[in-house]
Amino acid sequence: MVHITSNQLFRRQRTKVGAQPGAIAAREDAIPTRIRLIRFDAAGFEERDAEPCEDFRSLVEEGHTLWIDVRGLADTDSIKDIGTAFGLSSLTIADLVNVGQRPKCEDLENALLIIARMVTMDDTHGLCWEQVSMAVGEGFLLTFQETTEDCFEPIRERIRKGNSLIRGNKSDLLGVLLLDAIVDGYFPVIENFGDKLETIETEVLNSPRSALLSDIYRIKRELGLFRRAAWPLRDALSRSMTDQTEILSPSTQPYLHDVRDHIIQVVDVLESYRELASSLIDVYLSSVSNRTNEVMRVLTIIATIFIPLGFLAGVYGMNFDTSKPGNLPELGWRYGYMFFWVAAVTIVFGLLGMFWKLGWLGGSDRGRDRK
Amino acid sequence: MVHITSNQLFRRQRTKVGAQPGAIAAREDAIPTRIRLIRFDAAGFEERDAEPCEDFRSLVEEGHTLWIDVRGLADTDSIKDIGTAFGLSSLTIADLVNVGQRPKCEDLENALLIIARMVTMDDTHGLCWEQVSMAVGEGFLLTFQETTEDCFEPIRERIRKGNSLIRGNKSDLLGVLLLDAIVDGYFPVIENFGDKLETIETEVLNSPRSALLSDIYRIKRELGLFRRAAWPLRDALSRSMTDQTEILSPSTQPYLHDVRDHIIQVVDVLESYRELASSLIDVYLSSVSNRTNEVMRVLTIIATIFIPLGFLAGVYGMNFDTSKPGNLPELGWRYGYMFFWVAAVTIVFGLLGMFWKLGWLGGSDRGRDRK
Amino acid sequence: MVHITSNQLFRRQRTKVGAQPGAIAAREDAIPTRIRLIRFDAAGFEERDAEPCEDFRSLVEEGHTLWIDVRGLADTDSIKDIGTAFGLSSLTIADLVNVGQRPKCEDLENALLIIARMVTMDDTHGLCWEQVSMAVGEGFLLTFQETTEDCFEPIRERIRKGNSLIRGNKSDLLGVLLLDAIVDGYFPVIENFGDKLETIETEVLNSPRSALLSDIYRIKRELGLFRRAAWPLRDALSRSMTDQTEILSPSTQPYLHDVRDHIIQVVDVLESYRELASSLIDVYLSSVSNRTNEVMRVLTIIATIFIPLGFLAGVYGMNFDTSKPGNLPELGWRYGYMFFWVAAVTIVFGLLGMFWKLGWLGGSDRGRDRK
Amino acid sequence: MVHITSNQLFRRQRTKVGAQPGAIAAREDAIPTRIRLIRFDAAGFEERDAEPCEDFRSLVEEGHTLWIDVRGLADTDSIKDIGTAFGLSSLTIADLVNVGQRPKCEDLENALLIIARMVTMDDTHGLCWEQVSMAVGEGFLLTFQETTEDCFEPIRERIRKGNSLIRGNKSDLLGVLLLDAIVDGYFPVIENFGDKLETIETEVLNSPRSALLSDIYRIKRELGLFRRAAWPLRDALSRSMTDQTEILSPSTQPYLHDVRDHIIQVVDVLESYRELASSLIDVYLSSVSNRTNEVMRVLTIIATIFIPLGFLAGVYGMNFDTSKPGNLPELGWRYGYMFFWVAAVTIVFGLLGMFWKLGWLGGSDRGRDRK
Amino acid sequence: MVHITSNQLFRRQRTKVGAQPGAIAAREDAIPTRIRLIRFDAAGFEERDAEPCEDFRSLVEEGHTLWIDVRGLADTDSIKDIGTAFGLSSLTIADLVNVGQRPKCEDLENALLIIARMVTMDDTHGLCWEQVSMAVGEGFLLTFQETTEDCFEPIRERIRKGNSLIRGNKSDLLGVLLLDAIVDGYFPVIENFGDKLETIETEVLNSPRSALLSDIYRIKRELGLFRRAAWPLRDALSRSMTDQTEILSPSTQPYLHDVRDHIIQVVDVLESYRELASSLIDVYLSSVSNRTNEVMRVLTIIATIFIPLGFLAGVYGMNFDTSKPGNLPELGWRYGYMFFWVAAVTIVFGLLGMFWKLGWLGGSDRGRDRK
Repeated sequence: MVHITSNQLFRRQRTKVGAQPGAIAAREDAIPTRIRLIRFDAAGFEERDAEPCEDFRSLVEEGHTLWIDVRGLADTDSIKDIGTAFGLSSLTIADLVNVGQRPKCEDLENALLIIARMVTMDDTHGLCWEQVSMAVGEGFLLTFQETTEDCFEPIRERIRKGNSLIRGNKSDLLGVLLLDAIVDGYFPVIENFGDKLETIETEVLNSPRSALLSDIYRIKRELGLFRRAAWPLRDALSRSMTDQTEILSPSTQPYLHDVRDHIIQVVDVLESYRELASSLIDVYLSSVSNRTNEVMRVLTIIATIFIPLGFLAGVYGMNFDTSKPGNLPELGWRYGYMFFWVAAVTIVFGLLGMFWKLGWLGGSDRGRDRK
Repeated sequence: MVHITSNQLFRRQRTKVGAQPGAIAAREDAIPTRIRLIRFDAAGFEERDAEPCEDFRSLVEEGHTLWIDVRGLADTDSIKDIGTAFGLSSLTIADLVNVGQRPKCEDLENALLIIARMVTMDDTHGLCWEQVSMAVGEGFLLTFQETTEDCFEPIRERIRKGNSLIRGNKSDLLGVLLLDAIVDGYFPVIENFGDKLETIETEVLNSPRSALLSDIYRIKRELGLFRRAAWPLRDALSRSMTDQTEILSPSTQPYLHDVRDHIIQVVDVLESYRELASSLIDVYLSSVSNRTNEVMRVLTIIATIFIPLGFLAGVYGMNFDTSKPGNLPELGWRYGYMFFWVAAVTIVFGLLGMFWKLGWLGGSDRGRDRK
Repeated sequence: MVHITSNQLFRRQRTKVGAQPGAIAAREDAIPTRIRLIRFDAAGFEERDAEPCEDFRSLVEEGHTLWIDVRGLADTDSIKDIGTAFGLSSLTIADLVNVGQRPKCEDLENALLIIARMVTMDDTHGLCWEQVSMAVGEGFLLTFQETTEDCFEPIRERIRKGNSLIRGNKSDLLGVLLLDAIVDGYFPVIENFGDKLETIETEVLNSPRSALLSDIYRIKRELGLFRRAAWPLRDALSRSMTDQTEILSPSTQPYLHDVRDHIIQVVDVLESYRELASSLIDVYLSSVSNRTNEVMRVLTIIATIFIPLGFLAGVYGMNFDTSKPGNLPELGWRYGYMFFWVAAVTIVFGLLGMFWKLGWLGGSDRGRDRK
Repeated sequence: MVHITSNQLFRRQRTKVGAQPGAIAAREDAIPTRIRLIRFDAAGFEERDAEPCEDFRSLVEEGHTLWIDVRGLADTDSIKDIGTAFGLSSLTIADLVNVGQRPKCEDLENALLIIARMVTMDDTHGLCWEQVSMAVGEGFLLTFQETTEDCFEPIRERIRKGNSLIRGNKSDLLGVLLLDAIVDGYFPVIENFGDKLETIETEVLNSPRSALLSDIYRIKRELGLFRRAAWPLRDALSRSMTDQTEILSPSTQPYLHDVRDHIIQVVDVLESYRELASSLIDVYLSSVSNRTNEVMRVLTIIATIFIPLGFLAGVYGMNFDTSKPGNLPELGWRYGYMFFWVAAVTIVFGLLGMFWKLGWLGGSDRGRDRK
Repeated sequence: MVHITSNQLFRRQRTKVGAQPGAIAAREDAIPTRIRLIRFDAAGFEERDAEPCEDFRSLVEEGHTLWIDVRGLADTDSIKDIGTAFGLSSLTIADLVNVGQRPKCEDLENALLIIARMVTMDDTHGLCWEQVSMAVGEGFLLTFQETTEDCFEPIRERIRKGNSLIRGNKSDLLGVLLLDAIVDGYFPVIENFGDKLETIETEVLNSPRSALLSDIYRIKRELGLFRRAAWPLRDALSRSMTDQTEILSPSTQPYLHDVRDHIIQVVDVLESYRELASSLIDVYLSSVSNRTNEVMRVLTIIATIFIPLGFLAGVYGMNFDTSKPGNLPELGWRYGYMFFWVAAVTIVFGLLGMFWKLGWLGGSDRGRDRK
């Protein structure tokens, strides 16, 4: 799967400014187009790679469902041909190819267009997002993916195994199940965020390091990106459930309903996590303030005790002419030195007493809290 | 009751990615299923443990109410059977078993599905949340709980004692009363939050310790979880009151209304508490700043006074050759030592005067405030 | 008036968990119930204390308005009787007695239920909130108050004096006027908040003390409580104006409109105050930072000047054997001491120059601002 | 114009608590009432001061527009008489006199009531707000202002000069034009805020002084007040454009539309400014933190260098009996003093090197940024 | 293109306060008006500069599209003439000339008015915004731009080349395509913001300099301005798609839909960026706190170690009369000096041990994090 770094997601695949609407601009790094065709009815199924030049339209037949899965968007001409064959307008085809669209559901005249974002997580690249577009029509389903890998394999497997739910229904149900698979793919990512936040939380509360802030920031940023994939989908699904469209049969509605419930839950948890991350920043900042305070206190205690003592020692280090009476007579006292130490110890205990009263002792603030 | 730690709540019990919608995945730590059957009409009632294999459907009878209470969700097959017997779709049954659903009310064709979260608080584990699902239909009520303990005992007791409100009405009222019991169970938890916040508030305002911040953070986090249980329920109830459903009889409406009023109040107070917690963080942070400021001031006063004095003593400790005129003649003065002390005291009072003018004296800032 | 501390407001008067909806739980400290009856028409009026056991319902008469004012909610049996007599359901009666309800307007079948919160301010206790419930029906008005003191006396006085507006209209207008009196009672409290904020504002901008933060916090907290009394009432009134109810006659509508305008204004100002309080916290925190900065600067200036000087003095206090050439020859110079002072003064002015360039001089930052 | 300080705006001119709705309470400092009458049709016009006791109603005539402009609200009796003559209810009249109302548009039966706030800015008092109320009816327009000065003079001038737009239309257009003049008066104030914010912005970014925070706070506060004048007016106008009212003729609608566009723009810019002000506070606080950091660094560098040196000098200032071998032999070395300086210089450069590595050198942080 | 600085955007081109609505006030620095006329049908096209005095209205012909492009708004009389010729009201014409209007779509009786903001970016001036107004009517399209440069050239080129989409459709499609070109022009600007934020992000996380805050602030400010251009346009387009207007033919709707999708995406990304910028401020502030903490720790460690040592050295530098027994006997010890060093080293290690336990060692906090 192409690795799309987080920030690239902020970029729509743009045509040149002023280009005609419907102009197509494939990504420079788009993957070569491969077309996979699955055609089934309750009784049997056929699966094969297809050539771009085939007349797919003629394969649509009453009682059969045709799923044309286009992976890799480099061959824009073929995509245009396929789209046109199934009655998609040039504007719609442009949306399929110019990836980075906002997730949406659109009721075209003869098909339902769904644009969503599929997410995968891998240890090397982190999160990878890709645009998946679906056009669901009477007897056919077109899907367009940026890469060759996807999360639809379990569904293909079920078609092959003759799963009655898919095989016994029409293309609209297949479309909804694919959408369900995409949304289902959000959950492991969300759990991963949850785990990371939990780890960070423990560290922030126990031993805050400055690197944690960057970590929290990065999570907040990725949550923001996630949210931009999930929110519009949630809205689109909710809207498309109230706008009755002919393409979705009544028996498909509960499944769409189910997908919508899941995406609502995704959005809910995303919001919770964002809030949690913000709270963690607060806690982190406060712990830094606390540490500064603690450091200051140690400095203040030490300095405040020794600076006066240093002065005292300095006094008795002066070279006044002690032969003159009144000039540093202490130096000549029998117990002068002992007098000095008594004074010093008195000062020390006096100051310690003051700090005690101010509540500054007890080592660190943390220590004090444990009591 | 199974202890579900706060963060686990962020996790839906998920089937594998790409699994068919309606696939069931019981928690690994799910509790063995026990089924409790209560059947009553105005005249009499029957209560007993039931076998999973029974034909419950045949027990539904005009004029009777059948309450099948399924506790523990490990035996997914039986649950599937029961659900199917009462006409629930596989998607709905999956919602019952795959716990961690978002609270919702759904008007199925032949039943009203309510999913809510029950909360209990115990000293060892803190808050424990479990999913409670109800399917209310004509003459029957199914409830599905994660654990064997619940807050429905007072209602069962009232059925046994022949309480006319329950015994004289249908399953819809019983369902609403159970929901009422769940929402009622939120209030002691909320009060507990209130008590904790009050304690923290007192401490923050009087003697802020750094541990308080973690406490506030934890409360905010738990309030966030609570909110995710309460908000969706509030919305679902409000919506289900405007969408007239046939299952709820007019006489039940006021009770549902009452439950909704309670949940609105819960949400209100939760929001207040969250805001309060945020304010407390501000106050806490400010008190840390204040303490740092105070510590700094003490350091500055002591250091600023003694550093110049130390320098003065250092000057008279220099070993210049006093035999040369002009080299430290003070050392030979008759009142040189006294002169030194006069200079020192002058410096001290000068600096103290400066601090006085800057308003830094008066010990601590706190002391100053009390005046 | 019973003093209800701010936080208690967060608590609904709760029945036991699992109690039947409509169960009644009077506050333990509820005040003994006293019933005051006012009955009037355009021509005359009658006012007297009533016994709980009276048959109030029979007093309702075409053309007359009966106002039964129940003060103190201890005698729940009587309240139940009265409510039942006027056709209130047990759920509604429970709302009257289980104080701490969220303000609301509800259109019962035969009456309009209004629950609001009355506020009074007194120097000893601060704000006191109590629940006032009204049931307005054809020819009668029931009011239920927690305490014996209220803000309805001016209205009673007007009834006694034969005020044509009240005496010439029905119970619905009387109800709206009572509500108006309650909302009118919010304004002095709001002004009091305004005065306090103004005082705090002046202090924060001029001489921030750490106690101010607690003051702001407490005001924010009380504003939050106030808002929880005002917002729901605003919504309830707005809603009850669009839902045409039969109980409110067209001639009463403008008065209800007026009350709603007032409560909207209350909410507006509350929001402004909350925002103002938040801004003040920002300003306060910033002033603490500024002070710390100022303290730091003084310390830095003094320490930075005297520490090098102290070192210099230390150097010439060393006991190197000056008989060896090159060992501290300065000590033996004719103008060695003068040389020392020249060096010292040079250092001082060099550092002062550096501070000047950094813009640290000018005493305090405040002083600098005044220029 | 009466100077109304910002905070007074938070205060409604209140009648006594419990007063009858519609009770009138003129401000104690209300200005004596003067009535100015303008009456015109397309052909001619008449302008004169009027007596309060005149029978204004009789001046309303088919084809003529009568504008009664009441300035100063002290003479509440006359205002009551005028209002009653034109069919205003006592509640409406109270709104005219009890200034401090929330801006609103209300469709009375026979007139359209518009309450807005007029703003003027003057160098001495800052912003001055006054309530302007308008009642637009068939053939007449009543305006009520708190003071004698207003922003309507250009419109009067245009009436005098026979401007066809005003003279050829009815009272509703005149009312909308007056409202337009009020909203137009908001723009110079907004520009003034913009200029102030720009000045503060430059200062905050370049040389933050602590007084700036108070300035920003004051602007935020005034923007808050402004917003409380503009928002409700915006809502009221938007609403009154959808609620078709008979009083506004179709030809007047585009002008009302225009006024609404302006007030929407005002609100937009106000929100931008409020946000800008909040951002500026952040930047300011950060610059204070930066300065503290810079001060700290200077202190640390100086202290860290000289404290060890001071210790070194102290060591060689000790009075050990050097006759005993091993006791401070350095004092007797030939190059002892040079040895001391070599050690000192080594320490200095070692520490400077450490600071260099930590990136603390380069004088101030600002200096470093410029590179 | 005229450079409009960011802040000027906050200013509407205002007529004098009290001026009649519809009064025109050209900017003082408005550019001389040039009129470019394009007239085409499917078969042919004509393009030429036009004189202001021409009778444009007569050029409108069934089957042809007339595009009058007015660039530079100095010649207000001609603009007025043209507007009047095409039936625009004086209020509408004023909106065209008094630039700084809020973007909007308005359905005039005979035309659709669209006001939008065109943005260009150039290295010298940064962002330049200009108002572009369009009036789309039956057979004609008027555009009014502030400057001579625009982003419409690609569209003109397509007209010249006989592009069938434009040439085969009516003026409404042309209008939508121009709008599309304007919105397309937003994307490079947004990408530029994205790049800047990414750069700042890297710096904030790695080596925060104080100048970064100003940079973030400036980006937030410009994003705020951008948002004020994009939001109202989004709302206006969404609204104009639900309000069916006759001027937009059904075949144009998908193109308008497309433009709306783009502007929604723009708004989405703007919001993300604003949030990102706010998070960056948090991270920046925290890194300043961290640095202060680090500086403090170094100071504290050095000072805490050397101040006691300095005192010790001071003690042995005292001049007590050692001939008296008990007065500084250490000075006469054989290993007195060694004793001193042992004491000193003990102190140093003792303190280092304490710091180790407090976790203060490891140089900088950053260093510790890397481990």
